[in-house]
Amino acid sequence: MEITKNPMEIEKKSMEIIRPYVKDVFTDEAELKVASRIIHAAGDTDYAKVIRIHKAAVKSAKNAIFLGKNVYTDVEMVRTGINKKKLAAYGGEVLCKIADEEVAKEAKECEITRSMAAMRNFKGELAGAIVAIGNAPTALFEMLRLVEEENILPAVIIGVPVGFVGAAESKALLMKNKKVPYITVEGTKGGSSIAVAAFNAILYQMN
Amino acid sequence: MEITKNPMEIEKKSMEIIRPYVKDVFTDEAELKVASRIIHAAGDTDYAKVIRIHKAAVKSAKNAIFLGKNVYTDVEMVRTGINKKKLAAYGGEVLCKIADEEVAKEAKECEITRSMAAMRNFKGELAGAIVAIGNAPTALFEMLRLVEEENILPAVIIGVPVGFVGAAESKALLMKNKKVPYITVEGTKGGSSIAVAAFNAILYQMN
Repeated sequence: MEITKNPMEIEKKSMEIIRPYVKDVFTDEAELKVASRIIHAAGDTDYAKVIRIHKAAVKSAKNAIFLGKNVYTDVEMVRTGINKKKLAAYGGEVLCKIADEEVAKEAKECEITRSMAAMRNFKGELAGAIVAIGNAPTALFEMLRLVEEENILPAVIIGVPVGFVGAAESKALLMKNKKVPYITVEGTKGGSSIAVAAFNAILYQMN
Repeated sequence: MEITKNPMEIEKKSMEIIRPYVKDVFTDEAELKVASRIIHAAGDTDYAKVIRIHKAAVKSAKNAIFLGKNVYTDVEMVRTGINKKKLAAYGGEVLCKIADEEVAKEAKECEITRSMAAMRNFKGELAGAIVAIGNAPTALFEMLRLVEEENILPAVIIGVPVGFVGAAESKALLMKNKKVPYITVEGTKGGSSIAVAAFNAILYQMN
């Protein structure tokens, strides 16, 4: 068996295979790249039907990166996957509070998830920044509460929590919001790899 | 909207929703738990049709954990997601070499992917250990070369690389091997979250 071992070649081939599935859905080239990288990360072309990208999302994210804004994530896997070296070139870093002792204590006391407590804890820092939620519907619900009730407005919310309990509902609510541009996925699918793919796809378009 | 905020309750509800999709496919309770957690991590019930668990895989993995064996991963996201605290209780740790300078140099020189070079670098350490590959088909190909050509035999290979270039082929080869029990997914789907879900599902069954 002939194995393709060159990373650039693997990525090029992969994007060529994905293109027919997305080219009629995403006419904007920047959005097409985001959608393609999500499909690449999931190995699942069905994502082409459920990816939703607000028309201001990519531009707003690029602007925030350029301004050196941070990326706030719900879980450590999303933090790990984001290309921190490339982001740091603009001055931004990736922050996640799920492992903080203070957050764990607050979660226990309030009987909420740790990722929900982590978002609540970031609070004002989130204004103008990039938010990437890949795991917990509760983190996205809390983020949207901060948007609506406290008027804390990130530059963009990449909100792709996964699962069968609250994920679809939290993402529907994200798409209904009128204040913050978003990248999301309709339904139950999503996950850390999807959040990472969406963000890195934008980061790799910076020049 | 009523939001479920209790993590235990979210997981319980989720597993109840998933059960009908897996109960006739996986009759062994331990395997059913692995399959359920994969579906939970992907938010995708279609996984029920493509998850393949070798009949000795869960038992062999549990035994390796109990013996304090390490887990070797292809990428940092898989390392991050694995419950290291729980694993450490048995003496094992999670290792990943993709960010090592030596590995990066070797990859460049040999014109191979970094994750492939990382696997090659672990070599003999992999014998009797747990291998979890969530991203790179090339890492799985290299692992299988070590099995066949050098007779380096892990206790179990969780091999779920993702994508359209080599992933399906590498997993087909994994299923064909007669030397090492495996957990895998047929076709293009997979990813770091899937590898993490499969391993943690086994870890959480230890008592």
